[in-house]
Amino acid sequence: MANKVFIATSLDGYIADKSGGVDWLHEIPNPDNDDMGYHDFIDSIDALVMGRNTMEILLSFGIDWPYPKPVFVLSNTLKQAPAGLEDKIFMVSGDLKRLVQDLADKGYNDLYIDGGVTIQNFLKEDLIDEMTITTIPVLLGGGKRLFGELAEPLKFKNVNNQRYLDAIVSSKFVRA
Amino acid sequence: MANKVFIATSLDGYIADKSGGVDWLHEIPNPDNDDMGYHDFIDSIDALVMGRNTMEILLSFGIDWPYPKPVFVLSNTLKQAPAGLEDKIFMVSGDLKRLVQDLADKGYNDLYIDGGVTIQNFLKEDLIDEMTITTIPVLLGGGKRLFGELAEPLKFKNVNNQRYLDAIVSSKFVRA
Repeated sequence: MANKVFIATSLDGYIADKSGGVDWLHEIPNPDNDDMGYHDFIDSIDALVMGRNTMEILLSFGIDWPYPKPVFVLSNTLKQAPAGLEDKIFMVSGDLKRLVQDLADKGYNDLYIDGGVTIQNFLKEDLIDEMTITTIPVLLGGGKRLFGELAEPLKFKNVNNQRYLDAIVSSKFVRA
Repeated sequence: MANKVFIATSLDGYIADKSGGVDWLHEIPNPDNDDMGYHDFIDSIDALVMGRNTMEILLSFGIDWPYPKPVFVLSNTLKQAPAGLEDKIFMVSGDLKRLVQDLADKGYNDLYIDGGVTIQNFLKEDLIDEMTITTIPVLLGGGKRLFGELAEPLKFKNVNNQRYLDAIVSSKFVRA
């Protein structure tokens, strides 16, 4: 059982720029569409957990729903999955520890925890086991931060680093 | 000529914790005193530039002055080097671009730019050419940040990554 983060940030720790934009994620030329480990990561998880806001941003792109695994969406108000996605998206709410246990009981042991607020909420309860952080080498100088306030420090260790596109570094950290 | 940063941060981008402390920098066991590239880096520079505050923190440690190269200390008020260190510390002030040019004219081409405020001020004027960032894998959840606000993004590229002590990653970025 592991709760995993796989996310890209700027060198100064932002996941969206000052305007909320993410164009800077894709500015480095990627002629061969290197997925920088994404599909291997998706193969390693049983399901995703994200916040309602992240789901709505994804839906706003107007593309096909991109995940081949069940997506559990945290919301205190929304109880129904979006029309047409009832077999892919499952609304959940309540205590995160209990959610993780409920999902494990259903056979979803390895979870992809996604979205800034959801990642921060899982970290506040020390529920993240590993993080793969892909650093886009730009200083944005402002925006929406990946990490937030914590009552107590959380120790990890670096276990792997991979350079992509002659510019980007992806580093994996596991809870120490 | 290159202005270089060589600094350790937490995984969430802090250079001091909520109490201003840096004990977390040294919590990972280092039985063989691996310097994580520090001496090679010092060999690569001609002089250091830091702020008065960083100098005073270093002096407060009560140790011998640790730098074998000239240290230029930025201060708008202090005009005299600390007693006994007049041959090691040189007080400077004014425009950073001019300072860099003045130092180059004196043969100091490769500069180690150190201290949070000074690094941020150099970045604001796009005067940093490379940064070696050693990530201590702890989420502190608050403290003093390495990077600050910028008017415009600054693009770098990752050129090298080195893992130390089975836990820490040091990544080098150069201005793109």
